[in-house]
Amino acid sequence: MFEEADPDLLPEGLSDRLPPLAAEALRVTRAMNDVLAGHGFDPVQPPMVEFERSLASRMAGTKRNRMVRFVDPASLRTLALRSDMTVQVGRIAATSLKDAARPLRLSYAGQVLFLKGNGLEPERERLQVGAEIIGNDTVAAASESVSLAIEALKAAGARDISVDFTLPDLVDTLAASSLPLPEAAVPAVRRELDAKDAGSLVAAGGEAYLPLLYATGPFATAIEKLAALDAGDAVASRIEGLKEIAAHIDGAARLTLDPTERHGFEYQSWFGFTIYASGVRGALGRGGTYRITSEGGHDEVATGFSLYPDPLIARGAGSAKIERLFLPLGHDRDAALRLRTIGWQTVAALDASDDARALGCTHVLDGKEPRAL
Amino acid sequence: MFEEADPDLLPEGLSDRLPPLAAEALRVTRAMNDVLAGHGFDPVQPPMVEFERSLASRMAGTKRNRMVRFVDPASLRTLALRSDMTVQVGRIAATSLKDAARPLRLSYAGQVLFLKGNGLEPERERLQVGAEIIGNDTVAAASESVSLAIEALKAAGARDISVDFTLPDLVDTLAASSLPLPEAAVPAVRRELDAKDAGSLVAAGGEAYLPLLYATGPFATAIEKLAALDAGDAVASRIEGLKEIAAHIDGAARLTLDPTERHGFEYQSWFGFTIYASGVRGALGRGGTYRITSEGGHDEVATGFSLYPDPLIARGAGSAKIERLFLPLGHDRDAALRLRTIGWQTVAALDASDDARALGCTHVLDGKEPRAL
Repeated sequence: MFEEADPDLLPEGLSDRLPPLAAEALRVTRAMNDVLAGHGFDPVQPPMVEFERSLASRMAGTKRNRMVRFVDPASLRTLALRSDMTVQVGRIAATSLKDAARPLRLSYAGQVLFLKGNGLEPERERLQVGAEIIGNDTVAAASESVSLAIEALKAAGARDISVDFTLPDLVDTLAASSLPLPEAAVPAVRRELDAKDAGSLVAAGGEAYLPLLYATGPFATAIEKLAALDAGDAVASRIEGLKEIAAHIDGAARLTLDPTERHGFEYQSWFGFTIYASGVRGALGRGGTYRITSEGGHDEVATGFSLYPDPLIARGAGSAKIERLFLPLGHDRDAALRLRTIGWQTVAALDASDDARALGCTHVLDGKEPRAL
Repeated sequence: MFEEADPDLLPEGLSDRLPPLAAEALRVTRAMNDVLAGHGFDPVQPPMVEFERSLASRMAGTKRNRMVRFVDPASLRTLALRSDMTVQVGRIAATSLKDAARPLRLSYAGQVLFLKGNGLEPERERLQVGAEIIGNDTVAAASESVSLAIEALKAAGARDISVDFTLPDLVDTLAASSLPLPEAAVPAVRRELDAKDAGSLVAAGGEAYLPLLYATGPFATAIEKLAALDAGDAVASRIEGLKEIAAHIDGAARLTLDPTERHGFEYQSWFGFTIYASGVRGALGRGGTYRITSEGGHDEVATGFSLYPDPLIARGAGSAKIERLFLPLGHDRDAALRLRTIGWQTVAALDASDDARALGCTHVLDGKEPRAL
């Protein structure tokens, strides 16, 4: 039987981070945590498991059927493994920290898990690192959020970062104001904008929305095309906001605009962004403005982002050169301690046959000092 | 209904690490990781979830019914959440890293999860940090392991550490050599030694084992009582080993001996230890020598330990004084960057009403320099 023959393999979509991958994961997580702490974000560490209801209720983007669920023998309620820590941070903001001063800056870093992978992302577990500004969804918060995401990814080793801006509620806003649409037509117009299909967009009654299809690409030109739409004050203020955010970023990343992109922004309000880096396939993360609401009546705005640095970890692993010091049997323990204090990694011989080179050592302790092997 | 009324609470035995607890957890994990890396241990990060069979099979101490289990929709096999990372490291040593040079030093740090708490430990999730020396179970490996556990706990903030030594297979060794017992009597003798019940021990046919009951307490005297047992070469070499380990520790911790203690050492071989610190109820971790075996035929010795630093994190939280710098609207961004570079945590105003003191700031940026609030 397969179970008898093959007990050591891992399930599909799950893997070990082995050396040097795990060391790089620690380095990246630490570097990102340091950036977030430097900007005054307090870390929180929610549990791996919660009531399914808490994890699934607050934000429409969380899909219940992608979560690992089980019945809690203590409460007989359904629990789930977290697949998105943002939801957990929202719960904390709405409950334990509801009386903390706003804006409340919280950060997190941890593994999230899915019941199944999907075609584009076969992995069922990944590292999520993020930061949320709770109680503020202004241009200032969006500017801080985008800048911080860029800085965190750079600390993690990302190069040539690009950020794609979007306006997740743009169509709804236009439909309710300057480019009115019958309510029944809104989903079709949104769908054809997503599909970037001009013919179908017109057929769906969205002719007035055609210019949105062309207001995409490099930020400086796309934003002017969007401004030319002349779509009223609500959109004008969003355009001004995007320009301010772009000015704040000040060249730290290449900027693009895709004003009707909604994929992955199911719970964002006026502003969303996706972040990429050269040499990494797919997005490294996304963020934007949103609302935190709870059945208990809590309702407040927030701005934040989530990053998924695993591709950066895979790329960076092994690039750090490690100098390691072999400590022969009967070595000077005080000398070894002193050298560790100044940053050496030591490997103590346990047996006369231990092989310094095979154990990855570059140096050997000779008396009180390292000697290169 | 309860589910309707109370969606924000966490399940029994699970909790958030909020500020400042989470910051202390990061500090402690980092400090312990640094100690382990300093001694040449390479980190590994196994997944949160594996085939139940892998997690349950290798070491007798892992109890299947305390693991969260579910059916994998991909393989239709049973998966489980890890409740002990040592088992995962054993799997890695026996598979992916079976050809790496020995002794192989691996470290790990991560959350482990239980389906239910128990009376003494209601928590269902905790942080586990550990280090394994694979391919060696000698006195030298045991000495390194105990010293390293002590050093890691000190880095985490533990004070007045004490280490209790045990000889997990002592009774089996004695029963098979100098103090022969009928095989059927061994379990009863072990049980009465565990219970430290002299009368029942004699009744169970273990009169010759009575001196073991008194060879407990402070190491220096207890080890001499054990030596007085005159129980043959196997035990004499274990006694010599314990003395060597004690000498290696060299006063870094208070040492005790409880030679027949077996609780928590279900899979250890000749040597085991439990580690405590003042002000912390219960053990902070345990370790010892053991075997890694797999159905694929892998079989090798190892020495290591697991630490559970949550009580230290709870005790240390909030003791670090944080100096935080408020950045008013329109502040000098270059000055803020420079101050972050030298270690300041900054909090940028997003709105004129943001309150520096309420946001935990101790200083405000005044021109290019911090001014105390």
